[in-house]
Amino acid sequence: MAGAKDGGLRRLSCDDNDKIARDWFADEVKALGCKYEVDKIGSQWATMEGENNDIPPIGVGSHLDSVQSGGKFDGPLGVFTGLEVLKVLKESGKKTYAPISVINWTNEEGARFPPGCMSSAVWSHQLSLDYALSCTDTADRTRTIGSELQRIGYAGPKDVSYKTNPLSAHFEIHIEQGTRLEEAGLDVGVVDGGQGMRWYDVSLRGVTRHTDTTAMAGRQDALVGASKAVLEVERIGKAYGGMATVSLFKSAPQNFCNIPAEVDFSFSMQHPDAAVLAAMTDEIEAFIRATAKQSGLEVKSYENVWTFEPFKFHDEAVQCVEHAAKENGFSYKKLISHTGHDSIYTNFVVPTAMVFTPCKDGISHSPLEYASPKDCSVGAQVVLGAVLKYDDMLRERHG
Amino acid sequence: MAGAKDGGLRRLSCDDNDKIARDWFADEVKALGCKYEVDKIGSQWATMEGENNDIPPIGVGSHLDSVQSGGKFDGPLGVFTGLEVLKVLKESGKKTYAPISVINWTNEEGARFPPGCMSSAVWSHQLSLDYALSCTDTADRTRTIGSELQRIGYAGPKDVSYKTNPLSAHFEIHIEQGTRLEEAGLDVGVVDGGQGMRWYDVSLRGVTRHTDTTAMAGRQDALVGASKAVLEVERIGKAYGGMATVSLFKSAPQNFCNIPAEVDFSFSMQHPDAAVLAAMTDEIEAFIRATAKQSGLEVKSYENVWTFEPFKFHDEAVQCVEHAAKENGFSYKKLISHTGHDSIYTNFVVPTAMVFTPCKDGISHSPLEYASPKDCSVGAQVVLGAVLKYDDMLRERHG
Repeated sequence: MAGAKDGGLRRLSCDDNDKIARDWFADEVKALGCKYEVDKIGSQWATMEGENNDIPPIGVGSHLDSVQSGGKFDGPLGVFTGLEVLKVLKESGKKTYAPISVINWTNEEGARFPPGCMSSAVWSHQLSLDYALSCTDTADRTRTIGSELQRIGYAGPKDVSYKTNPLSAHFEIHIEQGTRLEEAGLDVGVVDGGQGMRWYDVSLRGVTRHTDTTAMAGRQDALVGASKAVLEVERIGKAYGGMATVSLFKSAPQNFCNIPAEVDFSFSMQHPDAAVLAAMTDEIEAFIRATAKQSGLEVKSYENVWTFEPFKFHDEAVQCVEHAAKENGFSYKKLISHTGHDSIYTNFVVPTAMVFTPCKDGISHSPLEYASPKDCSVGAQVVLGAVLKYDDMLRERHG
Repeated sequence: MAGAKDGGLRRLSCDDNDKIARDWFADEVKALGCKYEVDKIGSQWATMEGENNDIPPIGVGSHLDSVQSGGKFDGPLGVFTGLEVLKVLKESGKKTYAPISVINWTNEEGARFPPGCMSSAVWSHQLSLDYALSCTDTADRTRTIGSELQRIGYAGPKDVSYKTNPLSAHFEIHIEQGTRLEEAGLDVGVVDGGQGMRWYDVSLRGVTRHTDTTAMAGRQDALVGASKAVLEVERIGKAYGGMATVSLFKSAPQNFCNIPAEVDFSFSMQHPDAAVLAAMTDEIEAFIRATAKQSGLEVKSYENVWTFEPFKFHDEAVQCVEHAAKENGFSYKKLISHTGHDSIYTNFVVPTAMVFTPCKDGISHSPLEYASPKDCSVGAQVVLGAVLKYDDMLRERHG
């Protein structure tokens, strides 16, 4: 199993490394005596029976896939914690009222097959299954995630739908990916919502000419136009106190003595306030279109490929997380999530909340990503407490 | 033979299309009764005997390779004109004093295997043969031009050296790749020198983090730093009345939600005045190093990969070209070349001059490249006249 060259974890959705991790997950949950199922977009569902198996399970989910060179925590921590919850329940002989499902959601990262949070988006009816399965590999546009699921043997039979494969709630633990907990010296974060975020794909087209013989005046250099956009995206992020980044960036032709004629790039903007986020994205679009016009470039496409509005997690689910933190005597604060998680999608259709664990220097999507065993253990206890608290509520309602 | 997707000519050095063109050239010159030889870097030499075969041939050379999507004239016009010169001599029964060699120089473009003008640089002892053969494909760093020459059967036995495979002079016709002749309404250009040019490869390294969760302050975004460099290169080109372009540009990681940490780019600067060109390149280097420092980026490498100082072609050779233009009654002007040609390298070691043909809108390295049959024919007559004039001089000296 080859990692990234820089020592990072490289487990892109539906690649050979992902298959190894999936096979391992399947073996683990079967050994625990769970019912094990795979759905049509490859998400793995492991369910431990409760007293009342007529009500939908309480879900504990996250993802095993990584970015091109990621860390060991972004994703796996949530799935491992789910397995720990099951193990603790089994070892302690405690039977919950509702069944408990641990879920390995397919393609949370979207690093190989954008958009991310793909399977939870389909499950919550925010994205169609057909569209999702047809999404292509950014490095090889001839491969779809559907064909790759077939290749690794993870195109399962189960519906991808909260209606026919429902949950009662969804809890997820994740490293914070920021420094708010670390700086405040707190044990754990109770995540009660998230900032809004919008992603865009932009294609600029100019005209290629010989670099050495073409006068500067009147050039239609797509790289020059795109570079202005990169700097303006950064400026807007700072000016509005949000975040803004150009990530994917491809220039063509890749030739020593040709003026670049084609640049395709992707950028995202984030802000907790929907109105501010809209102002940011309006401003960059106006800038890019005006710059293109002044530079003789065509805006071949300008597509909003992904939007999360700022949101609140479900009050009762958040209260269960907070209760568990308090009950265990952990120091905590409520905070928002800055990025996307499968829980944002499950929150559309079932009560959902998240637990954040401090991580070193806020670093993620990097080989340097780290969370201490102690912090991971604290977070797992909070997840277990939240699940049991929610289970008590279900027992009161249905029992 | 597949072309570029946009309809351009795609005949990258030592690819399958290049082999087809080379095979065709070999057949053509053999049919003309030439002595045909291939040297160790794959350049093809076709020599028609003269009266005195003890003196080195007069060369007429250019290149059959193209950029990734080029036109039909940049390069091929010079080789076709050489063949025309041989055909006219044969058909008219005229025997020159010196032998005449038509040369297809390998890898003038450097589009696949930088640097360009590779074989003429080796021939003129400006570049070592071993280094040249080890240069790698920009799209696949595991392939060298040496291995590709072996693959297509063009690693020949002949020395690549002006000492053991000498010429008496070298003439080359090329489209102007600018608008000076077209705007002045002239038939032909007598090229008496060239502007200086310098090429650089730069690698910037930052730190990748999650796009959505990393505060703007303190980011080490390599794409932001490189974008500033792109705009400064352009500004300097305009400010000094020269040319300046970032061409190759690669950013990594290519992931939707990672801040770019690695950008490798190449840029060139051109100016007819050596002191001004030095000021331009000094200024951009200072800017890039200062920007990197301010942005927490490492300048992993900053390499001057190619330099041509401003130069003059050989007086006698230029006079032969001018004489031919006058003799035929063509309107002309003297002008400099803005870019690199094999003739710049031959000029280091043998009398050399060039002929420029007007081309539509100055466009080259593009499917839109065009020169009229009339203009090509005029240019070819000037080449023939220059060769014969130089041949007369040789006869006077040696005969």
